[in-house]
Amino acid sequence: MLTIYSSDHRLHHGVELKDGAVSESFEKPARAETVLARVKAAGLGGIIGPQSYDRSSYVGAHSERYIEFLAGAWSEWIATGRTCQALPLVWPVRGLPSIEVPQFIDGKLGFFSMDAGSPINAGTWDAVSASANLALTGIDRLSDGTRSAFALCRPPGHHAGREYMGGYCYLNNAAIAAQHCIARGAERVAILDIDFHHGNGTQEIFYDRSDVLFISIHGDPAVSFPYFSGHANERGAGPGEGFNLNMPLPKGTALDQFATALHHAGAAIARHAPDALIVSLGVDTFEDDPISHFRLRTPDYLRIGEVIGRFGAPTLFVMEGGYMVDEIGVNAVNVLLGFEGRA
Amino acid sequence: MLTIYSSDHRLHHGVELKDGAVSESFEKPARAETVLARVKAAGLGGIIGPQSYDRSSYVGAHSERYIEFLAGAWSEWIATGRTCQALPLVWPVRGLPSIEVPQFIDGKLGFFSMDAGSPINAGTWDAVSASANLALTGIDRLSDGTRSAFALCRPPGHHAGREYMGGYCYLNNAAIAAQHCIARGAERVAILDIDFHHGNGTQEIFYDRSDVLFISIHGDPAVSFPYFSGHANERGAGPGEGFNLNMPLPKGTALDQFATALHHAGAAIARHAPDALIVSLGVDTFEDDPISHFRLRTPDYLRIGEVIGRFGAPTLFVMEGGYMVDEIGVNAVNVLLGFEGRA
Repeated sequence: MLTIYSSDHRLHHGVELKDGAVSESFEKPARAETVLARVKAAGLGGIIGPQSYDRSSYVGAHSERYIEFLAGAWSEWIATGRTCQALPLVWPVRGLPSIEVPQFIDGKLGFFSMDAGSPINAGTWDAVSASANLALTGIDRLSDGTRSAFALCRPPGHHAGREYMGGYCYLNNAAIAAQHCIARGAERVAILDIDFHHGNGTQEIFYDRSDVLFISIHGDPAVSFPYFSGHANERGAGPGEGFNLNMPLPKGTALDQFATALHHAGAAIARHAPDALIVSLGVDTFEDDPISHFRLRTPDYLRIGEVIGRFGAPTLFVMEGGYMVDEIGVNAVNVLLGFEGRA
Repeated sequence: MLTIYSSDHRLHHGVELKDGAVSESFEKPARAETVLARVKAAGLGGIIGPQSYDRSSYVGAHSERYIEFLAGAWSEWIATGRTCQALPLVWPVRGLPSIEVPQFIDGKLGFFSMDAGSPINAGTWDAVSASANLALTGIDRLSDGTRSAFALCRPPGHHAGREYMGGYCYLNNAAIAAQHCIARGAERVAILDIDFHHGNGTQEIFYDRSDVLFISIHGDPAVSFPYFSGHANERGAGPGEGFNLNMPLPKGTALDQFATALHHAGAAIARHAPDALIVSLGVDTFEDDPISHFRLRTPDYLRIGEVIGRFGAPTLFVMEGGYMVDEIGVNAVNVLLGFEGRA
C-alpha cells in the first residue's frame, strides 16, 4: 500500500491545558514519525509526498471564511503583541439571539472553534494544509485506479467541522478528500471513522447529504470527548436522513464488541455501494491509550484491517488519533497489513 | 449607605489561562478587600453580613439543574482523581442536532459554561452562594424601605446565564436579586449594568420578559469580551421586546460619551418606573484597567454616581468587575458617594 507523507507536520507542535497546567499536547510530532518508521519497518509499500492543491480544494467541506480565518489567525494573533500559542477561551454559548463574527482575534478564535484544545502557532497553517494535501493526494490516487492508499495525516481532522477547529483538528482531511472525490465525479462515498472519539466534524459536514455516508464507532459521548455528539439517534437530516450512523460503545470495549459494530458498518457500506471508502484511522482505541478507555490489543488491529479489506471498496486510510506514541505505529500499520491480507 | 459583605469570598481563588500559562486569575480576593477597605475609609456607612437563603432562592434566575451542577461540580471533579482546579475545555458548538447533559464532569463543565475563564475549586460553591446571598440581603433591605444598599459581591455575576458560568461569574447576583424582588411582589425592576463588559448573562435571563428592564453600557463586542452578545440590535424577544437596551461604546470612551449613554439609560428607566433599580457596578471602565479599554478617571465615578442618584429609584448596587486592584476601591466607592450626594 502506498503511503503519502510530508515532514511539514512538524511545523505544528501544540500545547494544551491538562492537569491544571499548559504543557505539550498529546497530539505531537512524534506520533507521525512513529507511524512512518513502522510503515518502513513493515515494508508496507512506497512512500510519496503530497501534490500541491489550492486552498479552494478545502472549500465545500469547510466555509471560505473559516479557511481564511485559519490561514490568517497567527498573523492576527501576533499583531496584538502576543508570542505564546493562540488558544480559544470564550465561545458563542447556545441560545444567543444572533451571532456575528467578531473583529478581534480572541473573538474569532472562539467563533471558529469548539474547544480549547486546538492551539494555533506559527507553523499551524502550513502543517494543516500539508496534512489535507496528503488526503487529497491519496484520494486522487484512488480515482486513478489504485485500490488503497494511506494518508499519514498530522494534525488529524475528524473533529474539525464546516467552520470550527477542535480536538487537535483544523482541516477535516477525510471530509476534504470525500468532497474532492465527489467533485471529481464520484456518486457516493462512505467514511468509516474508527477513532476512539466521535468524528463530530465529519458528521456535521455531511449531516444533510445522502451522497456521503458517515459511520462512526466510538466511545459513548455521555462519558467521552467530544461529549455533545455521537449519540445513536443522530441519523442525519433532510436528504441526509439515514446516512449518518453512530455506534457509541461503552468503556472497556474489546475486540468482540468492536468487531460486531464493524460488521454492522460493513452492511451499511455495502448498501451504500460507495465509489470510494475513506477510513478515519485512529488507534486511540488501544488498551493503553492515555486519554481513552477501549481495550483493543495490538493483534486486534490486524483483524480490523482484514474486516475492512473484505468490504471490497477502493479505500483511503486517513490517520486520525492515537496518543500512546510507542504503540501507534504498530497498531496503525497492523490495520493496513490486515487490509492487505498480510496478517 | 449600607454595605453587605462576607469574607466567604476568599474561599474562591481562581486561576486562568493567560499569555500561554495558567496563573492567578485577575478576579482575585484582593479585589473585594480593597473595596471593603475603601468603604470603611470613606465612612460610607454600616457594614453587615448576609442573611442565609436556601438555594431555591437562586432558581428562577437559574435552572435547578445548573444550581445542582455548581453545588456538586468540585466533588465530581475530585472523584476523578484530579486535584487541580476544574476548567471547562470543550463546548457544545452551534448547530448540533441535539444536546444532552453529559454524565461525565468534563462534559458537564462544558455544557454549563461559556468560556474557559471560570475555574471551580474546593471553595467555589460556598463563595458564590455567599456572594448571591449578599445581593439577596441587599434587595430585601430595599424591599423594607431602605433607599439604597451596596452588595459587595465577589465572585461577580453578570456573565452567568440561566444555566452557564463564564467570565469569572457563577451565580448571577444581580439577576437573582431582581428575581427575588419580583417574587416578593415588585411589579417592575430595572437592572443597569455599567461594567465594561456586556452583561450577557443578565440579558439572557430576562431576554423574553417585560417586568425586568435590562440596560447595559459596555465595550463594543466586536472587539471586547464576551464577543458574542451586546450588540445594539439585541432588544429582547416576545413579551420582552423593547425591554433590553444595549449601548456598545468604542475603544477609548471617556466620561462625556459614557455620560450620554447614562442619560439615555435614565430616560428608559424613568419610562419603566421600576420598584427597584439594581446597578451592576463594574469599574473596569477605568483608564488603567488591565483587560479593558475605556478611559474613565477616578473623579468620573463620582459624576456617574450623581447621575444614577438622580434617577430617584430605590437602588441596590451589586459589585461586578474591575481588575486594577489598587484603584477599584476608590472608583467603586466614588460611585456610591456620588449617588449619596457626597461628591
